Amino acid sequence: MAYFSKRYHPTGTPPGMLSRRPAADSRPLRIHVVDYTAEAFDLRNDVRMSDCLPYLRRDSRTWIHVEGHPDETTLKELADSFGIHRLALEDVINSGQRPKLETYDDQLFIILSMPAMVEGLVELRQVSFFVSRQFIVSFSESGLSRFEPVLARLRNEGGRLRRRQIDFLLHALLDVVIDEGFPVLEDFGAQLEDLEVSILKDTGNETLAELHTIKRELILLRRALWPQREIINRLLRDEFEPVDEETLVYFRDCYDHTVQIMDLLETYRDMTASMLDIYLSSVSNKTNEVMRVLTVIATIFIPLTFITGIYGMNFDRDAGRLNMPELGWPFGYVAVWTVMIVIAVAMLILFRRRKWF
Amino acid sequence: MAYFSKRYHPTGTPPGMLSRRPAADSRPLRIHVVDYTAEAFDLRNDVRMSDCLPYLRRDSRTWIHVEGHPDETTLKELADSFGIHRLALEDVINSGQRPKLETYDDQLFIILSMPAMVEGLVELRQVSFFVSRQFIVSFSESGLSRFEPVLARLRNEGGRLRRRQIDFLLHALLDVVIDEGFPVLEDFGAQLEDLEVSILKDTGNETLAELHTIKRELILLRRALWPQREIINRLLRDEFEPVDEETLVYFRDCYDHTVQIMDLLETYRDMTASMLDIYLSSVSNKTNEVMRVLTVIATIFIPLTFITGIYGMNFDRDAGRLNMPELGWPFGYVAVWTVMIVIAVAMLILFRRRKWF
Amino acid sequence: MAYFSKRYHPTGTPPGMLSRRPAADSRPLRIHVVDYTAEAFDLRNDVRMSDCLPYLRRDSRTWIHVEGHPDETTLKELADSFGIHRLALEDVINSGQRPKLETYDDQLFIILSMPAMVEGLVELRQVSFFVSRQFIVSFSESGLSRFEPVLARLRNEGGRLRRRQIDFLLHALLDVVIDEGFPVLEDFGAQLEDLEVSILKDTGNETLAELHTIKRELILLRRALWPQREIINRLLRDEFEPVDEETLVYFRDCYDHTVQIMDLLETYRDMTASMLDIYLSSVSNKTNEVMRVLTVIATIFIPLTFITGIYGMNFDRDAGRLNMPELGWPFGYVAVWTVMIVIAVAMLILFRRRKWF
Amino acid sequence: MAYFSKRYHPTGTPPGMLSRRPAADSRPLRIHVVDYTAEAFDLRNDVRMSDCLPYLRRDSRTWIHVEGHPDETTLKELADSFGIHRLALEDVINSGQRPKLETYDDQLFIILSMPAMVEGLVELRQVSFFVSRQFIVSFSESGLSRFEPVLARLRNEGGRLRRRQIDFLLHALLDVVIDEGFPVLEDFGAQLEDLEVSILKDTGNETLAELHTIKRELILLRRALWPQREIINRLLRDEFEPVDEETLVYFRDCYDHTVQIMDLLETYRDMTASMLDIYLSSVSNKTNEVMRVLTVIATIFIPLTFITGIYGMNFDRDAGRLNMPELGWPFGYVAVWTVMIVIAVAMLILFRRRKWF
Amino acid sequence: MAYFSKRYHPTGTPPGMLSRRPAADSRPLRIHVVDYTAEAFDLRNDVRMSDCLPYLRRDSRTWIHVEGHPDETTLKELADSFGIHRLALEDVINSGQRPKLETYDDQLFIILSMPAMVEGLVELRQVSFFVSRQFIVSFSESGLSRFEPVLARLRNEGGRLRRRQIDFLLHALLDVVIDEGFPVLEDFGAQLEDLEVSILKDTGNETLAELHTIKRELILLRRALWPQREIINRLLRDEFEPVDEETLVYFRDCYDHTVQIMDLLETYRDMTASMLDIYLSSVSNKTNEVMRVLTVIATIFIPLTFITGIYGMNFDRDAGRLNMPELGWPFGYVAVWTVMIVIAVAMLILFRRRKWF
Repeated sequence: MAYFSKRYHPTGTPPGMLSRRPAADSRPLRIHVVDYTAEAFDLRNDVRMSDCLPYLRRDSRTWIHVEGHPDETTLKELADSFGIHRLALEDVINSGQRPKLETYDDQLFIILSMPAMVEGLVELRQVSFFVSRQFIVSFSESGLSRFEPVLARLRNEGGRLRRRQIDFLLHALLDVVIDEGFPVLEDFGAQLEDLEVSILKDTGNETLAELHTIKRELILLRRALWPQREIINRLLRDEFEPVDEETLVYFRDCYDHTVQIMDLLETYRDMTASMLDIYLSSVSNKTNEVMRVLTVIATIFIPLTFITGIYGMNFDRDAGRLNMPELGWPFGYVAVWTVMIVIAVAMLILFRRRKWF
Repeated sequence: MAYFSKRYHPTGTPPGMLSRRPAADSRPLRIHVVDYTAEAFDLRNDVRMSDCLPYLRRDSRTWIHVEGHPDETTLKELADSFGIHRLALEDVINSGQRPKLETYDDQLFIILSMPAMVEGLVELRQVSFFVSRQFIVSFSESGLSRFEPVLARLRNEGGRLRRRQIDFLLHALLDVVIDEGFPVLEDFGAQLEDLEVSILKDTGNETLAELHTIKRELILLRRALWPQREIINRLLRDEFEPVDEETLVYFRDCYDHTVQIMDLLETYRDMTASMLDIYLSSVSNKTNEVMRVLTVIATIFIPLTFITGIYGMNFDRDAGRLNMPELGWPFGYVAVWTVMIVIAVAMLILFRRRKWF
Repeated sequence: MAYFSKRYHPTGTPPGMLSRRPAADSRPLRIHVVDYTAEAFDLRNDVRMSDCLPYLRRDSRTWIHVEGHPDETTLKELADSFGIHRLALEDVINSGQRPKLETYDDQLFIILSMPAMVEGLVELRQVSFFVSRQFIVSFSESGLSRFEPVLARLRNEGGRLRRRQIDFLLHALLDVVIDEGFPVLEDFGAQLEDLEVSILKDTGNETLAELHTIKRELILLRRALWPQREIINRLLRDEFEPVDEETLVYFRDCYDHTVQIMDLLETYRDMTASMLDIYLSSVSNKTNEVMRVLTVIATIFIPLTFITGIYGMNFDRDAGRLNMPELGWPFGYVAVWTVMIVIAVAMLILFRRRKWF
Repeated sequence: MAYFSKRYHPTGTPPGMLSRRPAADSRPLRIHVVDYTAEAFDLRNDVRMSDCLPYLRRDSRTWIHVEGHPDETTLKELADSFGIHRLALEDVINSGQRPKLETYDDQLFIILSMPAMVEGLVELRQVSFFVSRQFIVSFSESGLSRFEPVLARLRNEGGRLRRRQIDFLLHALLDVVIDEGFPVLEDFGAQLEDLEVSILKDTGNETLAELHTIKRELILLRRALWPQREIINRLLRDEFEPVDEETLVYFRDCYDHTVQIMDLLETYRDMTASMLDIYLSSVSNKTNEVMRVLTVIATIFIPLTFITGIYGMNFDRDAGRLNMPELGWPFGYVAVWTVMIVIAVAMLILFRRRKWF
Repeated sequence: MAYFSKRYHPTGTPPGMLSRRPAADSRPLRIHVVDYTAEAFDLRNDVRMSDCLPYLRRDSRTWIHVEGHPDETTLKELADSFGIHRLALEDVINSGQRPKLETYDDQLFIILSMPAMVEGLVELRQVSFFVSRQFIVSFSESGLSRFEPVLARLRNEGGRLRRRQIDFLLHALLDVVIDEGFPVLEDFGAQLEDLEVSILKDTGNETLAELHTIKRELILLRRALWPQREIINRLLRDEFEPVDEETLVYFRDCYDHTVQIMDLLETYRDMTASMLDIYLSSVSNKTNEVMRVLTVIATIFIPLTFITGIYGMNFDRDAGRLNMPELGWPFGYVAVWTVMIVIAVAMLILFRRRKWF
């Protein structure tokens, strides 16, 4: 995840500016319409904006999904047809927004972040919803595939989703977006459990880099998902025009999920902090162990080598009686070995007692 | 305890879905019924769902305990007979829920986590309660054995539990679940006191791993138990249909226990943090000590060995008067020893003063 | 202070259970009665419970102090005579409670922790008060000696304590319990000031252990005293039956003291954290210093020793002109010394510049 | 950014003191007047204070921008003409104020901090606004250039800015000041992403210094920008005379930006903390790696060198049969080589297994 | 600053006890009276308590400043004459109080801490104010010199201070006490900026001690000043008898200053924490650098010295053909030098690549 992912207009741009060059990897614009009543269900892909209007006039409930990067004309048509405020549309275009809930007259405007795990890194996709009594307009970079289970439930005649108001569809969509957090977190949980095992053994920089990556992704994910809890809480607490009270019990369920997700994120953060401590201690311990081996070997052999040095000196034994008489003793060599072995064993015993090896 | 212990349906599953494969180690379904009035007491094990209904119609108070993993049919029967909401039952099945308190009409739905110490690790078991004026339905993986003291009190004719309303039974059950935290924390307290003694001596990786395990378990336990405090607080603060005001004084006692448990958890967390610091310092100190020994020995012998090296050189004394005349001095060898001993003693005194050994 | 100091009944014990084996070191039960009006004062030690009742019927104010571990019979008599709730008495027996303030009808029930410094460690003693308009019943392991100054003030005819209602006596007692915190904190303050001086010099494990002990005691003390602030605050904020408004100004003074105590505890905690950092840096610095000495000596002598090694080789000078001709030079030995001295001095200058010694 | 950037009068100076020596680098005083209605637009640079008054009497909306350091006379004229409180003007002069929002009668007084990135360091410029129904008076060290996009929108006849009340101009100006935070943060984000790559490789002091600089700038920037969030929130929440309710939806947009900026700052702070941990671990790891190489080489060669030392001793083989008989063996030299190679290989295998290299 | 600076009576002392031995360095008691109306101004030093009473009866505003340590008699006279509560006077005597604001009937009692920088350490002086509609009684160890600017403003006939009520004088006095924080903080800011430069170079214990001193002083200063913010906020928020609403705008200015002071203190705390991290990293880096030099030199020379050792062995070349034939080669010595140079250069290149020097 990028550190700075917000797109913004240059300072001083008038509010509600809708034109923006699409990001390099954004998908082409596609509009999907789902229209349903308790009795009927109709799904059309790749319609034009103008084709959406007749649905509005009907008594049915309509869900329009805009996929990819919408151009200025489409957005203006949308704004005019559905009475959507320009400032809200600006936020749809400038992706990387903080999740938020706003009301414009009796419309509800919700931006959420849908996380996904792509090659070990979290990717966030902005999903926006405009909700009124009659319609939901949703925007996202990706198509309807993520919402396939909702479509399946919509297709099922007699299902609750068909019988109830459009706020129930809103719940189904938010539920999908929020619950995408669980597999991502399960993935992090597994990664952390793996790391926990390896961290005491493997003290290389790769472990460290892996830990840092998890930590960073968790920080960024937390920033992205934290506001969602507040949003769902406001949906529960305040009264919003398009949401009936009897649906609230289902949003309460959503709220529980956002709370659990934040709980897990906090716990994982604590865990990475704890693991970093463990990692650091583990590295210290390893250095210590290496040091000890070095010290034991060096302190044993340095005095011994000194002794061999002594008897490697070339003092002239003929020059005086005190000049290295040991070299002429019959058992001199054996005596030196004995002294050296005694020194070595004494040191080994000493180090053993100090638990150095 | 696992990092990610929540079970969840795939994204997009309709809310209130009750079917789920039981976990590998879940116990078979058993239903126990306890029916009592001030005068009578009746306990039946292994009844069928349909046998429970007659109890409801009577004027007595009924406690139904569902042990193990309930199948879809049983749950649907339960939902229909007792008027339990599907969303709540879904939470019963998907164990690993955050503790919570919810109301559905005049029913109270409570999920708690009962901790237990199993081989040094904390194990959490979800216990759920549906409470109305007439009955309590409880779910847990384990059977009635945990609640045996409550049954004993229920059997005791004339006891408060028999005389009072069913909210008093609810208090007794919650009290059991919450107070299971104390032996677990007492165990942690003992572990920490043990560690505190050993941490300054033992700086191996095992101590570190042990400390990390305690820390991790405390973090996970805290996540699990934190919401219970809020739940009992809400029971005290808000008015709930099945709970009479005169029982509140007893729930206040429960609340005190949850607060004490959180207090202890926080304190233990602070303690593990402090101990990790101590551990790290202790490792640093040990490295330092080892370093000092190495340094003392090396710095004493390195110059001495250099001197022996000098007089081990083979310069041709016949080639010039200045070529190693020392080797020919009658007291050369003694002089070298004297110099070396003076150097060694001087260094020892210096290091002693610097408190290096 | 022990990590886990709470005493608790086995899980599932009915609430209000009053029997409990006394702790090994608990003192025998003694009951003291203080009865006073503006005109009269009467103190009796070692009375029996039944002797207390007549005092209640009189118009005087009565303070009953129960010292040591009360048995079940005495407690039941107490409960019946003074209308004390069983749940509250249970808390009196199970010492190690969190400080708390509760009301039972028009009685006030307060548990506080009185700290004391015993051999450098903090010891906490639970003190409990039942307060009504006519009487105060207090429980503590220790006798009246702690409250001697209050008794002295009570004996003083015409003193405020004699003239005013019993809530003024409550203030005097709470004041004693809370103010015991100041000498304890003063002791910690002195210990910290001592440590601050020694920590930069003494980097042994004893300093570390001492710092850890202070830190642990502060954490445990904080846990014990934190709720007292809230308790006195509630006494000030809410209206309680036995406390008159005109006495509140004195409780405000108590509140100030609890706030100051928490302030000091927080400050000391910050200080120990800061000192641990200093300690760690200091150890790092010392290791560094040792390392530098080792490095300087080793790096100076290692090349020199290498040179002596060169000229200690036994290549056969007769085998070829290039075999160690230096050994035959008249000034060879002097040249080698010169080279070695130049190398040593150059290195010393280099290390001096890098500020390694 | 300087640690202490507030300018303050000497202690005891009467409140509302307007004279102050300008800072060394402050620009000369210039006054610009922008006067506009829906139909007309007029911009005059370098006017005198007295020239501003006629604008006030007209029905148009007037924006007066004071650039550079105003002298006492100008300020007094301003205070008198526009009814501005002396205390507020004092804050304009003593730059380095905390951002704040105050009301004086029906005037709104706002101080904001406009950040800018100058050579890798953040520079803060205080911008102050006095707002009434008729006019805005703004003060800043820099001229109108920062507000050029707003002027452009004002010049555009028929634009929203021209048609609406002066609170819409206030929004445009605040929007410019606040949104200057985004490029600064984008810059920090890029710096952090760069650092993240280099921090595992480059463990020199420059990386550390760079990290510290970013951390410090973020701390100082956070201190400066934190209050702005609260200010815009108060603009939204409370009712202020010069701000109409229909403009609030635009200020909500501003508020979102302040929240996002604080979010990013917090995230970056977490990131720098995490990176410092990584850096420290990385340094530890590098030390460890170096240590291992030293240990491997030393522990292999130290025993070998000892062996060569043994056979470099000069014991007199003629003095006794046990004096170094090995030297006379025909395969002695080969045997020594064999022993040394075996020792070396054994050690290499051992170290390999311990993963030391 | 001392860790524990509070003075307290022995536990159990009755509230309102006014006798206390003065501190060793406390100044003798002096009483100063300032009496003023819009037209007149009168300042008398060294008056007796009884001389103050006539001022009270007059219509003028009176400010009595008590310097040094007041004796019991004076305090009792004061209490009686001015209707001051005993508990408040006790706080005046027991200096080292937490700043606080209390009301006794229609009197306001304020304790503040005035910081000063004395030889690099912060010194706190308690200043107390009793405020009614007619008079202010202030206590402080130091004399009127700190308040000289206020006296100067009072002397100035026609100044605001003379024309307005006594709450304006209160503002002037509080303003002086609070603003004394700015020069102290400016001093800390300068110290931190100096340290920031030196900390990457100088890793000695002095830098560490200096950093710790700053950190400790900031912690203690924060504890002392934190409550002042709340006090001024309460002055603004609640209605107090002696303070008129029109003066509040000036107290708002004071409040801003307390907020800025806390802001700066928090920022400096963050900075010291950050600097300590930098310091630790810097020490680690230095150790690392030293280690690397040692390793490079040791690992280059250890194998070379081993080689010289080989050819220093005294194997008897005559005993067998395989006994050190190299020694007899005509180019043996040259070959050994070649091998050694190749090894050294190879190692240098290797270390260069690993960036070890």
